[in-house]
Amino acid sequence: MGINIPNFLSSKSKDRKLIDFQDLDHIDGLSISAVSAKLYNTSRDDLVMFYFRDGANFASVYTKSKILSENIKWNLNQKTQKIFSLLVNTRNANSFTGDHGYKSMQNIAETISQKLTDKQKQDEENPKIIKPKNILFGCTGTIGETFPTEKIISMIPELIKNVKYTQNKLIWMKAALGIMTTDTRPKMAMEECDIGKTPIKIYGIAKGSGMIHPNMATTLGYIFTDANLPNEILKKLLKKNIENTFNAISCDGDTSTNDMVSIFSTGKVNHAKINSITDKRLKDFDYSLNKVLLNLSKRVVADGEGASKFITVNVLDSKSEQDAKKIAFSIANSSLVKTAIAGEDPNWGRIIMAIGKSETEINIKKLSIKIGDIIVIQKGRIHSSYDEKETAEYMKNSDIELNINVGSGNKNFTAYTMDLTKKYIEINADYRS
Amino acid sequence: MGINIPNFLSSKSKDRKLIDFQDLDHIDGLSISAVSAKLYNTSRDDLVMFYFRDGANFASVYTKSKILSENIKWNLNQKTQKIFSLLVNTRNANSFTGDHGYKSMQNIAETISQKLTDKQKQDEENPKIIKPKNILFGCTGTIGETFPTEKIISMIPELIKNVKYTQNKLIWMKAALGIMTTDTRPKMAMEECDIGKTPIKIYGIAKGSGMIHPNMATTLGYIFTDANLPNEILKKLLKKNIENTFNAISCDGDTSTNDMVSIFSTGKVNHAKINSITDKRLKDFDYSLNKVLLNLSKRVVADGEGASKFITVNVLDSKSEQDAKKIAFSIANSSLVKTAIAGEDPNWGRIIMAIGKSETEINIKKLSIKIGDIIVIQKGRIHSSYDEKETAEYMKNSDIELNINVGSGNKNFTAYTMDLTKKYIEINADYRS
Repeated sequence: MGINIPNFLSSKSKDRKLIDFQDLDHIDGLSISAVSAKLYNTSRDDLVMFYFRDGANFASVYTKSKILSENIKWNLNQKTQKIFSLLVNTRNANSFTGDHGYKSMQNIAETISQKLTDKQKQDEENPKIIKPKNILFGCTGTIGETFPTEKIISMIPELIKNVKYTQNKLIWMKAALGIMTTDTRPKMAMEECDIGKTPIKIYGIAKGSGMIHPNMATTLGYIFTDANLPNEILKKLLKKNIENTFNAISCDGDTSTNDMVSIFSTGKVNHAKINSITDKRLKDFDYSLNKVLLNLSKRVVADGEGASKFITVNVLDSKSEQDAKKIAFSIANSSLVKTAIAGEDPNWGRIIMAIGKSETEINIKKLSIKIGDIIVIQKGRIHSSYDEKETAEYMKNSDIELNINVGSGNKNFTAYTMDLTKKYIEINADYRS
Repeated sequence: MGINIPNFLSSKSKDRKLIDFQDLDHIDGLSISAVSAKLYNTSRDDLVMFYFRDGANFASVYTKSKILSENIKWNLNQKTQKIFSLLVNTRNANSFTGDHGYKSMQNIAETISQKLTDKQKQDEENPKIIKPKNILFGCTGTIGETFPTEKIISMIPELIKNVKYTQNKLIWMKAALGIMTTDTRPKMAMEECDIGKTPIKIYGIAKGSGMIHPNMATTLGYIFTDANLPNEILKKLLKKNIENTFNAISCDGDTSTNDMVSIFSTGKVNHAKINSITDKRLKDFDYSLNKVLLNLSKRVVADGEGASKFITVNVLDSKSEQDAKKIAFSIANSSLVKTAIAGEDPNWGRIIMAIGKSETEINIKKLSIKIGDIIVIQKGRIHSSYDEKETAEYMKNSDIELNINVGSGNKNFTAYTMDLTKKYIEINADYRS
């Protein structure tokens, strides 16, 4: 189907824990440090600082929820061309925390900007004055609890003290672990590409595994590149590539108040100047950014709560991409389809049901369905060679592909999800806050 | 909250099996008979005939799925003012059965209309000629399997032979049992009301318990009255009253290709002539019809797969009923809210999350949330008296009420659902077709 399943999810691997991590290393202009502010009352890292010594161009996309956490409100309110630091904390989502939550962002931003300005004066030849508006926040954890402003502020000096100007795979691992909540494993991805003929790095980390414990979890994704791209182009690239990556995954159909994906461009590599998103020299970067985002978002799904199978839903030959997306998510969000897959049951009737309720026009006589490579329905009829036993055998795989051809146009959409298992209910029902 | 929970769902009852059935008796002009056509390869009743000896006025509402079963297509195609028979079969949904499935409806309708015309000649002073277009069908069961036309046709004489002109509670029970698929219990309801000062009966039966085994289940609801109301008024009454009853329930957010709710009016009672839905003498009938539909739809939810708790979601003071409905269903369809309730966890953060993702404008400062009578959030803030232990105690009830006041208008909507349990996964995942 032309869908590129990354190596970490080989359809033959039975054990999803056996995942090779790519080794992320240095990105010029970016520093990372992580500490424990004892937000969990343990010594696990829970506070991660990304520091751009010369600032970074940036773009973000945020949750579509109508209820926004206070950090998202802060981020949206800052009018600036450069970001000098992104601070991510876990355990507390700073959501439904009201004026106090927003003021916390203000206070922490003031502390960070002040201390980083001091560091600039110490370390840089041409020190910059960093302002609160140059600071962004990612928050994830419980909602409605008082935000631990003091605990966080007290650790800022330690975070800055730990800053090193060269990054290695260990600090990336520390960062990816430090932003986790109920995730069972860290999520990292990288690509190398060219702009013109200049090599460029695109690195990323993410967290998320459904909307969860203790009250809700969140999807966070942070991409870093040493390319030199203006904010306007970063924004367009991110918006375009988020659609078939982070916006194409669904764990349980729920949405957090804190979702956030950002890209930061340190501009440390000298490449051909790019002024337009249609510039052909941007093609490889565009493609590679998509790969990094897709890799990360697949890792989020694969770590979905209780997941035992990774499900790819390809909808093909639709009248519009919007219709293809509606159908794909109607299937990917259907509890009945997802429980059938958990039970390794090739229950195509439920796929038909989910297509039917997708609120798109369907011409049954043009509808074809394949489970993996097995043709189940061809142009509205059960295929003569359809063999339920063979299909039941296929359902034992840990990667399941559903291919729906609606035969009404030439637009496609692919959604990714996981099965719905008893484990999901256990994780979400048996927890007592 | 002014929500009328019928007696069968007392909030104190721990055992949902202890349900008093109302005794439905005779409705003039209606006959019922039920037989086993061995569609399940057992002797359980699976074929139910409703026969209106003088015809009945009628109206139906059907599934919003874009994929329609063949019986629904048949029903939609018949242009007639009177229905003489409704035949309901289980085990086979006649969905995704193509031309053969549609032709089956034609063939069965021809047989029934012929045999009933013969019966008219035998029994009636002024025999009527019954045509295929006077026959409606309800089908539920597996999809994509060849429709058992011959088995059904062979039982038509037996069905007609069993017809009696007086109905008692036993035949209603037989009918309600005969249309069940994975339902664990039959669903019946009745009200008595007046049109003008003339007493009128409204009886109904239903089936449905989520979208299920073996491929999908279906919600069917059939209402019978001895009132004499024209099709046009029946249609308006049904459309109006379906909105806050059958269209206000959600088991798992899935929709069948076969859903159907109909009302039949035998016209056997002489009451004041009603020409308009705004006629005041229709008020009591309107109200009682709503009660019957609500009673039946609550029974469908209470029998929802794996349900351990009945959940009522009241959304109040919204700008529009549409917004209130969006919010109510965003909560009622949220896996996270439903698993929290299964776990008896007063996890209000998930309610906030579900409100946030409802795609309506929310002013947090006006938002109030009560769990039962316990105030959790008042105008955007956690209430000073909120006690999590007290709320956890409330969550042990088998009827849970969530009250959301959005404070932006004066429109309300109430949705009904059940919790999401491991049992649901077992029922839906562990079945192998």
